[in-house]
Amino acid sequence: MQLSRKSLFILPLLLAAAVPAPAAAQTAADAIFTVNNTWMLVATLLVFIMHLGFSTLEIGLTRSKNTVNILFKNVSIIAIGLLTYAIVGFNLMYPGEFSLGGLFGFAGFGVGTDAAGLTAEYSEGYTYWTDFIFQGMFAATAATIVSGAVAERIKLASFLLFATLYVGLVYPFVGSWKWGGGWLDEMGFYDFAGSTLVHSVGGWAALVGVFLLGPRLGKYIKDEIHPIPGHNIPLAAIGMFLLWFGWFGFNGGSVLSADPGLVSLVFVTTCLAASAGIISAMLTTWTVHKRPDISMVLNGALAGLVGITAGADVVSVMDSVLIGGVAGVLVVFSVMFFDRIKMDDPVGAISVHLTCGVWGTLAVGIFSADHSFVTQLIGVLAYGATCLVAAGIIFGTIKATLGLRVSEMDERRGLDLAEHNMEAYPDYQIMVTR
Amino acid sequence: MQLSRKSLFILPLLLAAAVPAPAAAQTAADAIFTVNNTWMLVATLLVFIMHLGFSTLEIGLTRSKNTVNILFKNVSIIAIGLLTYAIVGFNLMYPGEFSLGGLFGFAGFGVGTDAAGLTAEYSEGYTYWTDFIFQGMFAATAATIVSGAVAERIKLASFLLFATLYVGLVYPFVGSWKWGGGWLDEMGFYDFAGSTLVHSVGGWAALVGVFLLGPRLGKYIKDEIHPIPGHNIPLAAIGMFLLWFGWFGFNGGSVLSADPGLVSLVFVTTCLAASAGIISAMLTTWTVHKRPDISMVLNGALAGLVGITAGADVVSVMDSVLIGGVAGVLVVFSVMFFDRIKMDDPVGAISVHLTCGVWGTLAVGIFSADHSFVTQLIGVLAYGATCLVAAGIIFGTIKATLGLRVSEMDERRGLDLAEHNMEAYPDYQIMVTR
Amino acid sequence: MQLSRKSLFILPLLLAAAVPAPAAAQTAADAIFTVNNTWMLVATLLVFIMHLGFSTLEIGLTRSKNTVNILFKNVSIIAIGLLTYAIVGFNLMYPGEFSLGGLFGFAGFGVGTDAAGLTAEYSEGYTYWTDFIFQGMFAATAATIVSGAVAERIKLASFLLFATLYVGLVYPFVGSWKWGGGWLDEMGFYDFAGSTLVHSVGGWAALVGVFLLGPRLGKYIKDEIHPIPGHNIPLAAIGMFLLWFGWFGFNGGSVLSADPGLVSLVFVTTCLAASAGIISAMLTTWTVHKRPDISMVLNGALAGLVGITAGADVVSVMDSVLIGGVAGVLVVFSVMFFDRIKMDDPVGAISVHLTCGVWGTLAVGIFSADHSFVTQLIGVLAYGATCLVAAGIIFGTIKATLGLRVSEMDERRGLDLAEHNMEAYPDYQIMVTR
Repeated sequence: MQLSRKSLFILPLLLAAAVPAPAAAQTAADAIFTVNNTWMLVATLLVFIMHLGFSTLEIGLTRSKNTVNILFKNVSIIAIGLLTYAIVGFNLMYPGEFSLGGLFGFAGFGVGTDAAGLTAEYSEGYTYWTDFIFQGMFAATAATIVSGAVAERIKLASFLLFATLYVGLVYPFVGSWKWGGGWLDEMGFYDFAGSTLVHSVGGWAALVGVFLLGPRLGKYIKDEIHPIPGHNIPLAAIGMFLLWFGWFGFNGGSVLSADPGLVSLVFVTTCLAASAGIISAMLTTWTVHKRPDISMVLNGALAGLVGITAGADVVSVMDSVLIGGVAGVLVVFSVMFFDRIKMDDPVGAISVHLTCGVWGTLAVGIFSADHSFVTQLIGVLAYGATCLVAAGIIFGTIKATLGLRVSEMDERRGLDLAEHNMEAYPDYQIMVTR
Repeated sequence: MQLSRKSLFILPLLLAAAVPAPAAAQTAADAIFTVNNTWMLVATLLVFIMHLGFSTLEIGLTRSKNTVNILFKNVSIIAIGLLTYAIVGFNLMYPGEFSLGGLFGFAGFGVGTDAAGLTAEYSEGYTYWTDFIFQGMFAATAATIVSGAVAERIKLASFLLFATLYVGLVYPFVGSWKWGGGWLDEMGFYDFAGSTLVHSVGGWAALVGVFLLGPRLGKYIKDEIHPIPGHNIPLAAIGMFLLWFGWFGFNGGSVLSADPGLVSLVFVTTCLAASAGIISAMLTTWTVHKRPDISMVLNGALAGLVGITAGADVVSVMDSVLIGGVAGVLVVFSVMFFDRIKMDDPVGAISVHLTCGVWGTLAVGIFSADHSFVTQLIGVLAYGATCLVAAGIIFGTIKATLGLRVSEMDERRGLDLAEHNMEAYPDYQIMVTR
Repeated sequence: MQLSRKSLFILPLLLAAAVPAPAAAQTAADAIFTVNNTWMLVATLLVFIMHLGFSTLEIGLTRSKNTVNILFKNVSIIAIGLLTYAIVGFNLMYPGEFSLGGLFGFAGFGVGTDAAGLTAEYSEGYTYWTDFIFQGMFAATAATIVSGAVAERIKLASFLLFATLYVGLVYPFVGSWKWGGGWLDEMGFYDFAGSTLVHSVGGWAALVGVFLLGPRLGKYIKDEIHPIPGHNIPLAAIGMFLLWFGWFGFNGGSVLSADPGLVSLVFVTTCLAASAGIISAMLTTWTVHKRPDISMVLNGALAGLVGITAGADVVSVMDSVLIGGVAGVLVVFSVMFFDRIKMDDPVGAISVHLTCGVWGTLAVGIFSADHSFVTQLIGVLAYGATCLVAAGIIFGTIKATLGLRVSEMDERRGLDLAEHNMEAYPDYQIMVTR
């Protein structure tokens, strides 16, 4: 993604709707602007539906007694993400000229534009409003990634507070370093659609959250790992498919226009990386665990998708297969590693989004001659350090005040009854032994 | 939406497929026509998938013993809606010049066009066929809204008969008053994408259906309200997400072209209204019911979406947040109100579609300087009176002849066994106490 | 579809990403090329999501004890399909000039293009990459159709091997006869979007698989048919809706451009055929089985869709209703017929995809004056004979070596525990009597 130009407005916002359609003869440039903008809007709605994908993946891979709670978080996050992005996020991430050395900038509260913002004067690829809503859909994703990792034991209000601060302030602040034209962009760091800016930013916070919360009751007893299987594999599979579906917009829209060559190449590299992730995760888990584990295969697809996200437009088709294939192997071993060190991540979010997000970002430095491995590494480390500190401060403060974790009794009963006084499936007899 | 021009044809229909592509050099206007039409077709398929959203929302919020029955209704409705729209609906709703004083018109049976109907001569935004299929997808929606409200006790055949008559005749008849260029359109009434023409038209019929059917057994005992929880919250959440997803086409397509400024503004107002609905419903239910109720939050999103639908292209971004926020509060209190007066609406359809449809329509008169509150109110009342009478006649006649409600024994067994002799989930042990 | 031109490349592939965007003034032709390509990419992602539709349809119509297994197959197939299509399939199906008498051709291993492949020089409708990824999404479909028919008793590894060979070699080999410009194309055979090339190709293999595997335990006892109901009707309904949703791209994209008249006509014929299939299957099953059977209604929609696929762009709207209506009747009797001869097809895949695929292909010869019934019949028979032989050889060889069917004990336990050592729904008490 590239620098987004926009006007500075303070709330209340300027009304653009009344602007009449131009009466002048329409040119080929008008037509291309209209196609570009239409594709960006389609990409926007595809990224939106990823939030349903995340929701079903997370509830599918966790227990039925926490299902309402996880859905509540995921529905809230999209609302929180879009509203905070309208109030401050967009203007923090794309500060325009109001920047302190490429490190921090802010273009004022609220969003709005004048008539020029609705034409190619703003950008050849999209209007001001398209820019805002496409970027807004990305913002909430980072918090959703955290949601999966901290599921089944975090307090609802504490999570919502964390999500508001992290999505509203941290995500756009660090995002501005690259997509807002900040210091990493000037240095030549490359992250096409967000292996680092979105996925690792969510992943680092997930790491902090999991560390501060501790594992779910019964997951690690002495030195043994007791797997806690998810309650609904079809929902998990639906989640994977919807996430891949949305990724056509996540990566395809990150071209920032409907450029035929680039968007179609990105579709190919994205799909082949996901396919390679499926096959390599399948072979790895079949070899290592002696059985074809579907949750690993689902995560293999997502690993391939996260891995290709940083360089989907600058690597060859053959390299996309390699990048996805490596990601599919990495995710299996990463899940085993985090279990070994007793970092309990119910859905494997850290392995998918952080491990493979880092891999994908570094892979750009390996497979693209135009980008430097060292610069990519600097970017990875800068995001890692900053997100660890920021998430540590926010999660730490919440832990010291509101508290992060529900009581042992509430965790055993399940958060649905404890926090919401309702069940996800009241008609069924659920086994209560886990 | 605006007046739709089309040729008059009687069945059998003219075959347009054989029309060859023009060999002449293509102009910028051709290109823009092609983009516009492509966007309208994408909007069409988005509105289509709302029928899956309605389906999963309704079954999620009702009991497992009535699941097959509700799905059967929803699958049937889309078929009935499209076929009746092809036979009479489209020509009732867009009668062209064949109109009696803007109150009633009919352009003949069947659909078809000549070569001009496939070019910008028909409309700059879409072909004749696109016009038909986009509008056809809307038509079935009105009956689907009713389906949720009357669920769990209406006879299948009676409902299908009602849906056929209401969608085939009533919906297009009243729709012609505004979108067909009828008397309310001439008066200046505004309803961008159907807060009144679609949502309240469904909602008024739902009100009549619920009144004539009476509440489900066990819902109100003496003066106590006994909540009957839905059997599958994940399905309900999937429904909300898919409805929002489809709303990008429902509202975005109602621009009737791919105009970059308008479509992108509509995306923004639509999403922010939904987000505000989520947050305000969450705060309201957390305050009033002392717990974060997910079904209210899901309905809050839908309330925001219904509320913004009448004016998504003519209100400011800030006002869209207000409109959605108010809708999210309204829906919570409306659900409580209808429960108080013992109008049993299992999924809250009346509160979402009627209450918020009325609110959204009036909000255009409040927030847009170009529209009159009084005219908006006249429109709301005209639709209310007509739909109440029409639904009353149809439902009343069916009640007096076929009967509307299943037997008490069938209701207790569940409609799946009683009407379909099958179960939705034969592998599971279902609790039979509710 | 039509002949696809492309350059010949051997692995490793040429990198197209570095090609800079043209700096010259953009013309109306550029704009139309961009719209066309954008629509083809949207169609691609719609066909992709059909794989989720197939997945939920298949698991919904089978037992919960085999759910993980079926999902595993469906997730794997999309990866296998895309990767084999990249390695050999695309070049077998569209061999360009490297063809032996229109019967067999091969353009080399791997995919790749030069700068011209990204412009209208390659095709006015799409880039080389779009061509590849759109066609690649179709390829996996054929194997997925087989998956449903052989479900609940086939060995996982055996199925994956079959799918790899059938999708990688057989599907593109026979596909080249028509879409690759081979001998059937030259003869005037017509198959717009694949009633024969995709659906019957999957259906013939399903027939062979079901024959070689034999029925599930307990399905036919002496001369009685014991229905084995699917475990989750909502998942089946979700599958139908998603398949229809994807069909907008499957048929709409087969126009191979965004031509406004043709794409919008295809939307209309596709939707009306599906609607007619619903209504006719409903009336048939209500009459024959004396109850409204939802699985038949779902299959009726799919039957209408498969039926219209061969001629969606060359039949009138009225004829599309007839074609879909006949398909809805056919599918009900076809399911009864295959049960009568003890061919056990758990999801009705053979009836939907083969019976209605044949019907749709022949219907082109009946309803379109430009096409010959005899030629259509020759095409149907050629595909039938070839696919029966090819599937027979592959399935037969696997049966003689690896074996096709799981042990009786594994079938009774369910493939989830037997092959994957996991359950789809570990929190629920599942009835173990079936």
